[in-house]
Amino acid sequence: MPQFLKVVRFQEALSLLLDRAPAHMEELVSLEESHRRVLAQDIYSPEDMPAFNRSTVDGYVVRAEDTFGSSESLPGMVRCVGKVEMGLDPGFSITAGECAWMPTGGMLPEGSDAVVMVEYTEKLGTDTILVSRPVAPGENVMHKGEDVSRGALVFKQGERLAAKDIGLLASLGINAVGVAKPYKVGIMSTGDEIIPVDQCPALGQVRDVNSYSLAAAVQSCGAMANRYPLVKDDIGSLQQALRRAWEENDIVLVSGGSSVGVSDYSVEVMLSLPAAEMLFHGIAVKPGKPSIGVAAGRKLIIGLPGHPVSALMVFYLLCAPVINPVRLASVQAEMVVNVASQPGRDDFVPVRLVREGESWQAQPVLGKSGLMRILAQADGFVRIAYEQQGIYAGDRVDVAIF
Amino acid sequence: MPQFLKVVRFQEALSLLLDRAPAHMEELVSLEESHRRVLAQDIYSPEDMPAFNRSTVDGYVVRAEDTFGSSESLPGMVRCVGKVEMGLDPGFSITAGECAWMPTGGMLPEGSDAVVMVEYTEKLGTDTILVSRPVAPGENVMHKGEDVSRGALVFKQGERLAAKDIGLLASLGINAVGVAKPYKVGIMSTGDEIIPVDQCPALGQVRDVNSYSLAAAVQSCGAMANRYPLVKDDIGSLQQALRRAWEENDIVLVSGGSSVGVSDYSVEVMLSLPAAEMLFHGIAVKPGKPSIGVAAGRKLIIGLPGHPVSALMVFYLLCAPVINPVRLASVQAEMVVNVASQPGRDDFVPVRLVREGESWQAQPVLGKSGLMRILAQADGFVRIAYEQQGIYAGDRVDVAIF
Repeated sequence: MPQFLKVVRFQEALSLLLDRAPAHMEELVSLEESHRRVLAQDIYSPEDMPAFNRSTVDGYVVRAEDTFGSSESLPGMVRCVGKVEMGLDPGFSITAGECAWMPTGGMLPEGSDAVVMVEYTEKLGTDTILVSRPVAPGENVMHKGEDVSRGALVFKQGERLAAKDIGLLASLGINAVGVAKPYKVGIMSTGDEIIPVDQCPALGQVRDVNSYSLAAAVQSCGAMANRYPLVKDDIGSLQQALRRAWEENDIVLVSGGSSVGVSDYSVEVMLSLPAAEMLFHGIAVKPGKPSIGVAAGRKLIIGLPGHPVSALMVFYLLCAPVINPVRLASVQAEMVVNVASQPGRDDFVPVRLVREGESWQAQPVLGKSGLMRILAQADGFVRIAYEQQGIYAGDRVDVAIF
Repeated sequence: MPQFLKVVRFQEALSLLLDRAPAHMEELVSLEESHRRVLAQDIYSPEDMPAFNRSTVDGYVVRAEDTFGSSESLPGMVRCVGKVEMGLDPGFSITAGECAWMPTGGMLPEGSDAVVMVEYTEKLGTDTILVSRPVAPGENVMHKGEDVSRGALVFKQGERLAAKDIGLLASLGINAVGVAKPYKVGIMSTGDEIIPVDQCPALGQVRDVNSYSLAAAVQSCGAMANRYPLVKDDIGSLQQALRRAWEENDIVLVSGGSSVGVSDYSVEVMLSLPAAEMLFHGIAVKPGKPSIGVAAGRKLIIGLPGHPVSALMVFYLLCAPVINPVRLASVQAEMVVNVASQPGRDDFVPVRLVREGESWQAQPVLGKSGLMRILAQADGFVRIAYEQQGIYAGDRVDVAIF
């Protein structure tokens, strides 16, 4: 059905999918369940942290101006009027010429604005303190709200929460957060020649690799993977299976059994879904040319090549950024050999990373295209963009990590 | 109890903990559950992949020597004796001067050793094929076992399985793997001043941050986090709680409530566990000096500072490498400012990563030590080793990613 053919560049395919990405539902989760979840809303601080001006050292709390000009040879003199207790309101104030003993973490009394470290003081008699070094206003003090002030934007919508972020939320007393519900991603392999993993392939049969590798890749993007039974190469079976997966998921990945990719009637079946619209049919990339993008309602159907290496590469290129917009980890490396590329398509080259002194070297994993072990041996991949002729040995490249 | 004090360098503390890391139990999991698990054994291929010599192109299968010397002006001539069907044993062999039609993926007949792409052939009459380009033996052929040969080492013990690895296992028909059981890590916060997250702290009280942030950090290392109730500052409560956590886990993290760290009687309680042995008491690092390491039987008790920023930093420095020996992600960056360091200790400086053209810049996150938002704003940290005086602006550094 050549009228469907709509071959696009990689960047265009990706932006078409991103534009039509399904909406995320929202859910409230406790702080304990919030690890790695993506915030559905901005978060503002409900309170000042710290809640009061407090000392960051042991010493004497003073009015800073009373210490100006103090030195070892000519120490200042202040009168000690009390003692601040940890965890208690001081209950007194400091006026000109006065000071009070202050433990680390203690609350500054009214009137005071700085703390002299105990090292720079000396006690004289019962209540006179000699100060051998001046302090500036605010010195050795953590001000109320200095860490986080009440009403301040703490995290933005779309941020993924790490352990350190959960710590900040806990300290602000936020024990539940609104997060995006992870996408449900349906995964199905099609093709008469595909057999379950635990069977031994007869001639011309291949094991169902894609539903396993894609399910793991979907999980690593923080989404829920739903594996469906193998689908035979007939239009009725595919129609029934795809319809069900479309109803039960936000995104459906269909990988064709043949090395050529999803067959023409697969496209027909995809386009028979309600409100279905072809986004692209074929991408100018290597590997992954026979990929298909279809939007149906607020859901996406993505047809992947049948070959396991191509299917997984296309997942990382087109599906991972849609499922998990937080950037893929990448490292800078130096390419160690020339890599030629055909202009007019984006090439994606699997590479191994090798530490070389202070930096990383990227070594393309060699072997015939389509070898399974190429991906297993690779740490990531390098993109050679549409307009580039290739990469020279010595060029610095970004390696996207698998 | 100063007789316990045993201050060590960071590297020594880490290797003491690694030496005494609890043994991992082993379990068998299905391929679907194997994502991110760590292999407990080497894995060897049970079969050849591919299982037979197969064509990588459409064309005519030949004996390569029959095409030697062929050119466009003087094409070679071979007699077509049959047609190989996809997924079927050809059932005939090729002898001198013969060829057969061959689809991509088809099985090479006995006697043949190369495939001429259809583009370089022309049909003459009913069974004569003209060949306009010679092929070398093995050309356009994927040999039996060329991707993975039977008995070859596929993955080593200790490797963590990614999606791409699961794909290779599936294609080899391996549908269950022996993996290390994740550690159980108990987490408890101690201190009279610690209150649950959903309460509003009175003066001198702080919320229980550590058990939330440490639980998330433990999970991100692939281990199981068990949070325990808050423990009051009395020796009986701590003894009971620690004993229980020690029985129920492989590793127990105890964070002290006070900014000074776990108190002296905590050490006493740790050392009262069966076969307990002090590994270190104090580390020459900033932050995290008051950390404690105790081995008790084949289990570890690690005392962390009470301050949430220090506790989490020490977790990343000392606990994460023990729980998950697979390297922490890191990127190379250029430090943008001079950072001074006190010789005689390892300094760990939280930094933000900023993209600058082709490379990354590391900007230390500024602010008074101990601000919670410093970690939330940081992408990772840089180590200034014991013997270094500091880092200069422009130096290349490794940033370990949170």
